[in-house]
Amino acid sequence: MNDIRVSSEHRFSCKVYYEDTDCMGVVYHANYLRYLERARSEMLASRGTSVQEYGERGILFVVYRIEATFRAPARLGDVMEVITQARLTSQYRSTFEQRIEKGGQLLVKADVELVCIDKSGNLQPVPDFM
Amino acid sequence: MNDIRVSSEHRFSCKVYYEDTDCMGVVYHANYLRYLERARSEMLASRGTSVQEYGERGILFVVYRIEATFRAPARLGDVMEVITQARLTSQYRSTFEQRIEKGGQLLVKADVELVCIDKSGNLQPVPDFM
Amino acid sequence: MNDIRVSSEHRFSCKVYYEDTDCMGVVYHANYLRYLERARSEMLASRGTSVQEYGERGILFVVYRIEATFRAPARLGDVMEVITQARLTSQYRSTFEQRIEKGGQLLVKADVELVCIDKSGNLQPVPDFM
Amino acid sequence: MNDIRVSSEHRFSCKVYYEDTDCMGVVYHANYLRYLERARSEMLASRGTSVQEYGERGILFVVYRIEATFRAPARLGDVMEVITQARLTSQYRSTFEQRIEKGGQLLVKADVELVCIDKSGNLQPVPDFM
Repeated sequence: MNDIRVSSEHRFSCKVYYEDTDCMGVVYHANYLRYLERARSEMLASRGTSVQEYGERGILFVVYRIEATFRAPARLGDVMEVITQARLTSQYRSTFEQRIEKGGQLLVKADVELVCIDKSGNLQPVPDFM
Repeated sequence: MNDIRVSSEHRFSCKVYYEDTDCMGVVYHANYLRYLERARSEMLASRGTSVQEYGERGILFVVYRIEATFRAPARLGDVMEVITQARLTSQYRSTFEQRIEKGGQLLVKADVELVCIDKSGNLQPVPDFM
Repeated sequence: MNDIRVSSEHRFSCKVYYEDTDCMGVVYHANYLRYLERARSEMLASRGTSVQEYGERGILFVVYRIEATFRAPARLGDVMEVITQARLTSQYRSTFEQRIEKGGQLLVKADVELVCIDKSGNLQPVPDFM
Repeated sequence: MNDIRVSSEHRFSCKVYYEDTDCMGVVYHANYLRYLERARSEMLASRGTSVQEYGERGILFVVYRIEATFRAPARLGDVMEVITQARLTSQYRSTFEQRIEKGGQLLVKADVELVCIDKSGNLQPVPDFM
């Protein structure tokens, strides 16, 4: 499809605190999804409109599908970088290709599909945030 | 004050999963507050009206103050019991005296003060849930 | 492959509390992964060995890959059922096919690949928990 | 007691993401405790030794008691400041006086008592991190 639009890469840094870890001594797997979501929120804000501003306009970004591979763990105190590239695959769907790295090492790789809905849950076109 | 009303004790059981623990090998301290809140929600529901039903009527229970002592830790797989007793200390304030136990051993003791507000944030009388 | 082994279905019930929701009014997407993990832990325990017992033997189950589709949201107070079926796809890899339902309606569908490691992070055969 | 030692104030900034909020539209009360803990971790690190370094030396900081008042809520996208001042009240106990502010407005005020233990759970003197 020649209509696909791809953003430039966005980089977001975050750190592991106690709350993020579990008793296996590493970050609890579901918590990487939080880092991914923080990074997507920051990416949108960096393009001019924050998720709360979209929300005030009645546009909610919701995760429809996620595919994530966990390659290596992060530990307490680690500083990671979340690298995000968005791809508008149709008028109604965007895919965020994300990876979490630590000092250049890949920890997590994820494709996250988001759709937009209004407050009644009806599908909306993804706003052009690029 | 002779107007203070005290509920009977409510008991709620819950279990420690990976998500609850941190890399010190025990439950992350802030997560005990979640168990306390689950127990308060269950207590209210057991008295006839759930928190979501109160919410539909525009009554939101919010935590105003919490005082908690952490005596002993819970670990992965532990089954705990949360024991809750509510005390209406005024028309506008309720205190939930709660403790988390494991096999009769006290893990956490907490006093949690709740107030009720409407959706605009205005203080409301605490409904008589007893 | 004729070596694939498939478990029977395991059913686990859980409920949505305030902690699980976000300001969009529904369960925060990453929190469904917690429900999935609770259900896997309960499934293992129901087959005779809990995750903490495996941990004491030096066998840690870690999520290697997750693919999840979020079809419909859960809300405060909802009681959901997590249905889990495990599939041993090789000596070193197991896939848990899971879905979260509410009153028969599919909310989330997920395939979760787990591997086993020892405390040094070395890959171990998946124990036969079936 | 003339032995009490008080640190200077430490300031730490953090932001509200979806993960932090609940369906009442504001930050879930227990999540403020995470912000407080992040700030304490950053304060220790800023004094030369991080919590993971203390952990490697076998010194674990654990929360013994918390008293928190929730004055005003934070919402999605809010940037808060956590202001922390530590007080060594005895050889074995430290109190962190913390407040969370937004644009100068007080949101949460908390006193958090920490003790130090070794890996066997035995009480240890609080290291002089000041």
